[in-house]
Amino acid sequence: MRSPQVEPAAALPTSVTIYEVGPRDGLQNESAVVPVEVKAEFITRLVTAGLSTVELTSFVHPRWVPQLADAAELLDRLAATDLTGLRRAPVLVPNERGLERALDKGVTEVAIFGSATESFARRNLNRGYDEQFAMFAPVVARAREAGLAVRAYVSMCYGDPWEGDVPVDQVVEAARRLLDLGCTELSLGDTIGVGTPGHVERLVESLTATGVDVDVLAVHFHDTYGQALSNTLTALRLGITTVDSSAGGLGGCPYAESATGNLATEDLVWQLHGLGIETGVDLEALVSTSVWMAEQIGKPPASRVVAALA
Amino acid sequence: MRSPQVEPAAALPTSVTIYEVGPRDGLQNESAVVPVEVKAEFITRLVTAGLSTVELTSFVHPRWVPQLADAAELLDRLAATDLTGLRRAPVLVPNERGLERALDKGVTEVAIFGSATESFARRNLNRGYDEQFAMFAPVVARAREAGLAVRAYVSMCYGDPWEGDVPVDQVVEAARRLLDLGCTELSLGDTIGVGTPGHVERLVESLTATGVDVDVLAVHFHDTYGQALSNTLTALRLGITTVDSSAGGLGGCPYAESATGNLATEDLVWQLHGLGIETGVDLEALVSTSVWMAEQIGKPPASRVVAALA
Repeated sequence: MRSPQVEPAAALPTSVTIYEVGPRDGLQNESAVVPVEVKAEFITRLVTAGLSTVELTSFVHPRWVPQLADAAELLDRLAATDLTGLRRAPVLVPNERGLERALDKGVTEVAIFGSATESFARRNLNRGYDEQFAMFAPVVARAREAGLAVRAYVSMCYGDPWEGDVPVDQVVEAARRLLDLGCTELSLGDTIGVGTPGHVERLVESLTATGVDVDVLAVHFHDTYGQALSNTLTALRLGITTVDSSAGGLGGCPYAESATGNLATEDLVWQLHGLGIETGVDLEALVSTSVWMAEQIGKPPASRVVAALA
Repeated sequence: MRSPQVEPAAALPTSVTIYEVGPRDGLQNESAVVPVEVKAEFITRLVTAGLSTVELTSFVHPRWVPQLADAAELLDRLAATDLTGLRRAPVLVPNERGLERALDKGVTEVAIFGSATESFARRNLNRGYDEQFAMFAPVVARAREAGLAVRAYVSMCYGDPWEGDVPVDQVVEAARRLLDLGCTELSLGDTIGVGTPGHVERLVESLTATGVDVDVLAVHFHDTYGQALSNTLTALRLGITTVDSSAGGLGGCPYAESATGNLATEDLVWQLHGLGIETGVDLEALVSTSVWMAEQIGKPPASRVVAALA
């Protein structure tokens, strides 16, 4: 299989942690409901392909996300599976009840899903912008007491489908409040894929100017407007080394009329490997995993690299 | 229609010339043969949308490119059309006969299509790598004598489907030889879309290190591996201000198993406008042009911005 010609660039990290969101964010946004054994195989194949950080599932109520209603059963299956190489295995929890279910299954890292805007907080969390922090506070406190790492997603950082432009200061405030609750990592989400590189620069520089350590920041771009990889490159130049992506580009975008969702892991890996940046990923094994998963859900992969290589 | 939030970034140009290749490179690589009156309307709509540089067609022999067999008739139609705003209207010419046909129609700029590799020169030009320069020499000389600008494409700069990796020194040599013939602009082509940002840096810096003025350089990326916009951003940071793209992402890639061809003009415009970089383009008018053109050829646009906004 073809691989990129390696030509390093100035001012970039030597290695990047790919935070794989396909099994959770990807499958959550696909209309097909995937059987639990297929999910377990998907995750096993991702880990075998070298992805060492995989968000496994979500303990959200099945009424809201029927695609992930099998979270407990999936974790039981994975507990009986050899997942050598998996270093971080976070699970999304929406609230205290979700956290308790995750703790029962012995998870060591959870993620919460915050919003930078009032409109999305109301629609996605059924809470106001301010209220979300009160809802998250006991979740984060309990998780940290139990020794867990806690990632916080900050969604709608670059634009909101109902509010339009989102002020950078507002995103900084949301991010600071989530860190103040005790979160150990922030994933800055371009949930609708509208951001551009100068916007990334301004947001990241605004955060670090308030004293946020760049090491706690991750980026999460959707490719709805084709900007995800340029924005990622910009974030890498600013010192960020954790990048969210989804194998095969799995997961559409529920808030834009486009089939294109998360940045595809393969497209990211192609760029990183071309730049000589280590990821630990075997691209050939990853592409074959995404091709196999696309067959399971009956939809061609959104990843351009997969389309070119498969 | 939604537009990007404007957030300038450091070290970028204030304006960019978009060199629109849809009517030539795009339509040449689509299987549908488009009627001449549709081509004329397409070009008129592109100019009305603010694209001031449009490569109109090619005087290649119809046996090789039946899609553009109507080049002379198209130019006659356009001569009778109000194209206020069109500042550069180049036409591709493969050889001296093509040039004579173009001169008969009063064109003021031509483009030639060179290769950085032996394999592609043989397959696309039916000449060896060295022989191509002998073939182009009289074309460029005659065009310059007639007062024309001459753009040279350098294809396969970042990889070749038969040879694999392409040494940067070889590309530099091809570029220098085309400039020495008298070409006034070089378009560095990633014909199969495999390049990554460090590769762009090394090629552009290698060229300028030999004394090539960055102002004569343009970039031409295909999005086959999803890298086109990151590579363009990298080129802009290096001082390049002329970028090739194709409305709607028109044109597949004949040398990779992917439907994705040229960088889509809309995806480029979204990024440039987000960065506060002037293009002169009305994005809404451009998107509606690409939607209309997609209907003419019976294939959805490859542009992510068009898919998101249309």
